[in-house]
Order: sequence, then C-alpha cells, then structure tokens
Amino acid sequence: MIRRLCVIGVGLIGGSLARALRAAGYCQEVVGAGRNPEHLRQAVELGVIDRFETDLGLAVRDADMVLVAVPLGAMQPVFAALRDHLADDAVLTDAGSAKASVIEAAQAAFGRLPDCFVPGHPIAGTEQSGVAASFPELYRGRRVILTPTEASSPAAIARVRAMWEAAGAQVTEMGAKHHDEVLAATSHLPHVLAFALVESLARLQDQREVFEYAAGGFRDFTRIASSDPVMWRDICVANRVAVHDMIERFSADLQVLDRAVCAGDGERLLKIFSDARQARDRYVEKTDRDPGNE
Amino acid sequence: MIRRLCVIGVGLIGGSLARALRAAGYCQEVVGAGRNPEHLRQAVELGVIDRFETDLGLAVRDADMVLVAVPLGAMQPVFAALRDHLADDAVLTDAGSAKASVIEAAQAAFGRLPDCFVPGHPIAGTEQSGVAASFPELYRGRRVILTPTEASSPAAIARVRAMWEAAGAQVTEMGAKHHDEVLAATSHLPHVLAFALVESLARLQDQREVFEYAAGGFRDFTRIASSDPVMWRDICVANRVAVHDMIERFSADLQVLDRAVCAGDGERLLKIFSDARQARDRYVEKTDRDPGNE
Repeated sequence: MIRRLCVIGVGLIGGSLARALRAAGYCQEVVGAGRNPEHLRQAVELGVIDRFETDLGLAVRDADMVLVAVPLGAMQPVFAALRDHLADDAVLTDAGSAKASVIEAAQAAFGRLPDCFVPGHPIAGTEQSGVAASFPELYRGRRVILTPTEASSPAAIARVRAMWEAAGAQVTEMGAKHHDEVLAATSHLPHVLAFALVESLARLQDQREVFEYAAGGFRDFTRIASSDPVMWRDICVANRVAVHDMIERFSADLQVLDRAVCAGDGERLLKIFSDARQARDRYVEKTDRDPGNE
Repeated sequence: MIRRLCVIGVGLIGGSLARALRAAGYCQEVVGAGRNPEHLRQAVELGVIDRFETDLGLAVRDADMVLVAVPLGAMQPVFAALRDHLADDAVLTDAGSAKASVIEAAQAAFGRLPDCFVPGHPIAGTEQSGVAASFPELYRGRRVILTPTEASSPAAIARVRAMWEAAGAQVTEMGAKHHDEVLAATSHLPHVLAFALVESLARLQDQREVFEYAAGGFRDFTRIASSDPVMWRDICVANRVAVHDMIERFSADLQVLDRAVCAGDGERLLKIFSDARQARDRYVEKTDRDPGNE
C-alpha cells in the first residue's frame, strides 16, 4: 500500500498509473507535480490526482512513493529539485524509456546513487499523450522492466515491483545496459524507421500523390510516426549508442536486401521474406496466447 | 455488364472481384482457372466461381472479360497460354502490383501489345491470401489504377473501368512507369522495410528476448511482414529499378538521421520527427475524410 504517491509529470504514463492504483485501492493520496498548472488542474478535474504542487520540494514532502514520469531530458533537473526534500521512507522511481541515462542523471543530481532509487520502464503507451489520454487499464498485463542499480535496496525494489503489480503489470528485472540494447531493437529502431520513412516520402516531389495512393498497410506501418517528437528526440539522444548500433545493423541488412533487389536475386529475396514472415508469425502466435505482450 | 468473366488465379484479389461483381449483379457467369484443382473446387464450394478449368485455353473460351490475378512471375506463361484462345470481344486485364513488367510480359507473349489489353492494379489487399480470405467489399472505396498502353483501345479501357466501379472502386489512370515509382514509395518500400526489420531482429543473438519485449507498436509496424513472400519476391524483382531507387533514397535519409543520433543533435532530430508527424497526421486527416484511401 502507498500512503502518498507523488507523480511528477502527470501525462499518459504518470496519469494512467495514478488511475490504476486508485482503482485498485492501493494508494491513499495522489499528489501531482509538473510545470504547467493548467494541465495539473485538468488532472484534478479528471480525478487522476487529489491535488498538485508546482514546487517539486513541496510536492514530494511526506510522499512514500515518488514516480518521475517526465521526458528523459528533464530527469536531471527534476532529481536535483527534489533531492533535499524526499521523506526518510520515500522510494524514488521513474518511467524513462532509456535507463542508463536516467541512472547517470540521478548520479549527477544526487552526487551518488540513492538506495531508495529504483529505475523502471513500463513497456506501454499509445501514440497519444497527455493526462486526458490516460486510463487505468494501460498497464494491465503489460511488461514493466526494473533496472535496479548496485545501490538500490531490496526493500525499495520490492515496493516498486508491488506498485506496478497492483496496476496489473508483469514486472521483470535486468541491467540498465541490457535494457537499453533490447529496447533499441524492439522499440527505438522501429520508431526511427517509421519517422524516417514518412519523412523520406514527404520529401519526394510528388508528395501529395504518394500519400494519396498509400494503402492500408502504410497507415499501420507509420502509426508510430505520430508519437511525440520531443519524447523520441530525448530517447534517441539518451540511448544514442544502442540506437546507432541498431541503425547500423539494420542498414547493413537493408543493403544486403537492396543488392538482391538490384540483381533480381529472387531466391535470396524469397529466403529473407520467408524467414521474416516466420519470425513475425511466431511472435504473434506467442503474444496471442499471452496477450500481456501486445 | 459482363457475360462471362474468367478469373485466372482465384485468390484474395481475383476471388474478391468475382464476389463483388456477383453481388452487384454485374456478371452472369464466372469461370475460374488456375493450377490447383483443389483450390478451384474450394472456390466453387464457396460460391465465388460457377465452374473451373485448369486448361487456360478452355477457361478463357467465350469470356468477354479476363482477369489475370497471378503472381507477377507467372504473368508471361499465362499470357502465352491464353493468347490463341481469347474471344473476339474479350477484354484482358490483370491485377499485378508492378505494371511495366506486366506490359513487357504481354509484349513478349503476344509479340505485340493487344488492343484488348488494359493493365490494372487494385490498391487493396490484406496480409491474408487465398480464396477463403476473399470478400465482396474488398474494393469498396479503394483505388484502382489503370495503366493503359499505347495500344489499349478506349472501349477496352472503358469496360475495365466500369467493371472495377461496379465492384465499388475509384478508378484512376496513369502511365506504367509513374505507377511503378509511386507504388515503390507507398507500398513496396514499406514492405521491404518491415521484412528487413523483422529479419534483422530475428538475427540478433537474444532474439527470443527481443520479441518478448516488443510492444504494441511493433505489431502494427510489422504486420505487413506477414504478407506472402512469393508475391513480394516477384514485386521486388519486377519493379527492381524503382524499388532500389527508393531504398537508396531512404538509406540516405536514414544516414542523416543516424548522424544526428550519433552527434546527440537533438535539434535536428526534433525537426525530422516533427516534420514526419505533421506529414503523417495530414495524411490520416485526409484519409479520414475520404475513407476510400484507407
């Protein structure tokens, strides 16, 4: 149970966790914090939070759980603003999509890694953002990855895990570097490709015609290019080593495919496409059995 | 009105057209043809066709409309097999996804371009294939592009146009080369990227884990990688010049993005991502007003 949850950054991610925990009766009070009082007022009106503060020191006062759900680029100043105001029994966690950079930000802001700090990443979200898009079921059956530091205390880890489980999530743990590599492959690279594809097409001369004849598959394929550009800028900068590595691997594979196209090498193309279809179908089969991953 | 429609290749595309025209009362009889009698028997049982022939010469006899809906690689032998058996009033069309190669195949098989031949391409389909997946509404509001040759007679063009309109489609015309460039951008490149992405991820060492943590966006993004590998091999070989050109343009744009990632150039990334989101949202807005394009 959480006595007082402080959510810093009450958008889709922070708002949905607050809603889920309130719905589960897992939380007595939710205090929201952020820079924009209008958004915070909206969050109160929507019943997502009980009250808000725009001063982070006041916001975290007496909170036994603090979730920082701000863009990666804002993590360090937020940590610095709250560092002297955490309660003795407070646990601090975050929802950033890249973990090594958040750990660096905490190290820089605190001058050390606090034992109450447990980095985390809920693998959930839509291309929507903002508190109005939040809903209590967002985390139901979804994965949350915790990447505890060497300093994270077992008690703090257990409390963060219990919170996400109360919201309906499946919680796993791994190292921050490994997390960043896995997410570069499964999430960051696909987003980069979708943005790059749409940008590439938009720059063609006959842009209007190109979009006019785009078929249904295109809409699915590029849905994620409607995601928040600021968030994705921060992710690409924060996880640039792993994202660059994945772009390089992908580019090399695309060159192989391109050479087969140029050579009209049907056998090679058939093998690549068949292998891809098999891998994709295995993945879908698996997630259909286990809808938590979808 | 069509007296006797002959559909060569009774799969999703050919089967759905037959269903649509029968539902619209636009066609008195449908004869199916193809290599696999079992599939054709299934098509009869499903009520998609009235009867079938496995000999193409017999199949097209007395048909006043012939649709060839086979993989691009099979176009030339099919044209060669039916060339001496077309009725005097027959119109010949096809549903291939790349048009210049189909026109070359007709030229090679007939020794000239017949005036009854009107190449066409319905921009519709799902990642499903086969006659069991066919349904009469597939073309409702969808685009069909006709790419008449210099030899195509106005009367033949008008009859093919009327047929697709009877199936509910919006018919436009353009040159074959231009069609192939537009489709390379809107359809062939996205499919190639989806196949390449899934193949790239499947070859990572921790493949299982990568797919385990793939989020919902990934499923949308890679849906088209479940498309028929044989069809896509044929498309990439048939349209290799335009597909290669698009892969090259895309690769160049991806390299620019990669350099921004490496340099941590947030400003550049934000511009790319914002432009892409705007272009994608304009496209979706447009197709939401005009659902025919979706």
